[in-house]
Amino acid sequence: MILQILYIIAIVSEAITGALSAGKYRMDLFGVLLISLVTAIGGGTIRDIVLNMHPMIWVQHPEYVIILCFFSMLTVMIPYFFARFDKLFLLLDALGLICFSIIGVNKALGQEFGFIICVIAGVITGVSGGILRDILCNKIPLVFQKELYASISIVACILYYLLCVHTTIPNTFAILITLVFGFGLRVIAIRYKLSLPIFIFDEVKQKKLTHKDKKDSV
Amino acid sequence: MILQILYIIAIVSEAITGALSAGKYRMDLFGVLLISLVTAIGGGTIRDIVLNMHPMIWVQHPEYVIILCFFSMLTVMIPYFFARFDKLFLLLDALGLICFSIIGVNKALGQEFGFIICVIAGVITGVSGGILRDILCNKIPLVFQKELYASISIVACILYYLLCVHTTIPNTFAILITLVFGFGLRVIAIRYKLSLPIFIFDEVKQKKLTHKDKKDSV
Amino acid sequence: MILQILYIIAIVSEAITGALSAGKYRMDLFGVLLISLVTAIGGGTIRDIVLNMHPMIWVQHPEYVIILCFFSMLTVMIPYFFARFDKLFLLLDALGLICFSIIGVNKALGQEFGFIICVIAGVITGVSGGILRDILCNKIPLVFQKELYASISIVACILYYLLCVHTTIPNTFAILITLVFGFGLRVIAIRYKLSLPIFIFDEVKQKKLTHKDKKDSV
Repeated sequence: MILQILYIIAIVSEAITGALSAGKYRMDLFGVLLISLVTAIGGGTIRDIVLNMHPMIWVQHPEYVIILCFFSMLTVMIPYFFARFDKLFLLLDALGLICFSIIGVNKALGQEFGFIICVIAGVITGVSGGILRDILCNKIPLVFQKELYASISIVACILYYLLCVHTTIPNTFAILITLVFGFGLRVIAIRYKLSLPIFIFDEVKQKKLTHKDKKDSV
Repeated sequence: MILQILYIIAIVSEAITGALSAGKYRMDLFGVLLISLVTAIGGGTIRDIVLNMHPMIWVQHPEYVIILCFFSMLTVMIPYFFARFDKLFLLLDALGLICFSIIGVNKALGQEFGFIICVIAGVITGVSGGILRDILCNKIPLVFQKELYASISIVACILYYLLCVHTTIPNTFAILITLVFGFGLRVIAIRYKLSLPIFIFDEVKQKKLTHKDKKDSV
Repeated sequence: MILQILYIIAIVSEAITGALSAGKYRMDLFGVLLISLVTAIGGGTIRDIVLNMHPMIWVQHPEYVIILCFFSMLTVMIPYFFARFDKLFLLLDALGLICFSIIGVNKALGQEFGFIICVIAGVITGVSGGILRDILCNKIPLVFQKELYASISIVACILYYLLCVHTTIPNTFAILITLVFGFGLRVIAIRYKLSLPIFIFDEVKQKKLTHKDKKDSV
């Protein structure tokens, strides 16, 4: 119940941020609408396709799609209004990330999947909406390059799984603990610009190195 | 029956336009083949995956794939011949769009889905082949930026759904009415270069505005 | 049995090459991990989604995902070590291509699909991991532009299908013959830089031609 309310808040705020990000690419209204929908419900869709968990939430509740379309078009009409609350949306997006992760783990638990698949289900739900959005906008997914995001989803999924399976606390508490913990982590990551190390592998430099090595060995 | 003939005309012309568009990206023959197939049958494939409607048409009729491969390779051999009929292909593509939309709604109706999911099924069938093609060619999908295309698919899907569910006219008439109406709309859109409004959202400009506002309020 | 050992060698080497290729795009560790996984098991995942063959191998054996994550992170720690063996990885990738193709045909045969769908299943398994990797890295898939790769997968799939269905030789022999033949073809293609013809279609040039034609006809 609490999860459903959070879910709706999460998909609506993802739809709004999706629309705002589409606005940078000179798209028409249909493009904006599609980017909004994909950002909001693309993650759950990919999870359900990969793990064969039909029907999807939005197929069972098509009214969610209508709500998302409404907010997407509202964003187009008053973008500067929504953009003014960019910090609020950053927080709502953090909430959405954790919320999506919990829902993903939850749905996989319901299908009696084990630890690894549950975590994968949660992470797919949390991050792949944003990945699809960036692929449609023709850029390298942001989630690979910005502050701790996917890693927080992984941590939240593991925590929630452990709380659900290896403790006896009620589900509502498990949700709340994961939400507070994950949300807190994300806020700290944004505040202090924490990020994972970047892996740079320069083949040319490497070839030079090998070349030198050869000279050295000669 | 009429729908099946139109379907084959539609996928063949999509395969040819797919091959022609692959020719702009220095792809080898396999690339051309794949782009052709994805443009022609990618939309239906995504629809059937998302709505779990297996098996797909081309899995049941693999001979369609062979026909498409044949036309794709024929296009490579005589591209200028096909390109000379570019206006014909624009019309065939319009026919294909409406035809795909009707087929999508039809298949979803057969699974007893409601209004919203039926329209989504139709639009996915109509536009996502082209979206996949553009993702594989590494550009922002054309369908987000050119004249009325997806919106006509939406209108055609709604019309066809209403004709099927809320009237008693025979299915063949519903198909013909939707085809004539949708095709006409698309021809008008091409002729008069009608397009949806473009949504441009400039974050920098917005930040400047906010900044001014602050000064003003000071 | 032999196929399973080859499969693990193949996905591990694909994961390592995936990680090395992610290193060129300034991705963080999560990005590298995801690119590794997608390169290694993305092809089989797409095949099983499209042909509705659930559950997937990695869903049944989640320990494979852990092994792949381990090698992906190992690559990040000692990239120059792995990169030094670039020729070995080219060979392992060739092995993987044929191995994936055989596994794809095998799985489709188990579902009683016919010739065309079996070949498509094999080719999807062989090449689409690399296509997904390139889409996530925001470039035109390499497989469309480099030496014979997908075409060798097609040939291997056809050979394996014929050996399985139209001869009575034991499955292990069919696998070995296909492996030796396909691997040999790929090594020859790399050695002599064999590639499919590139299809270049220049619309502007074509328009000029048509223009000239018109003048001529005037």
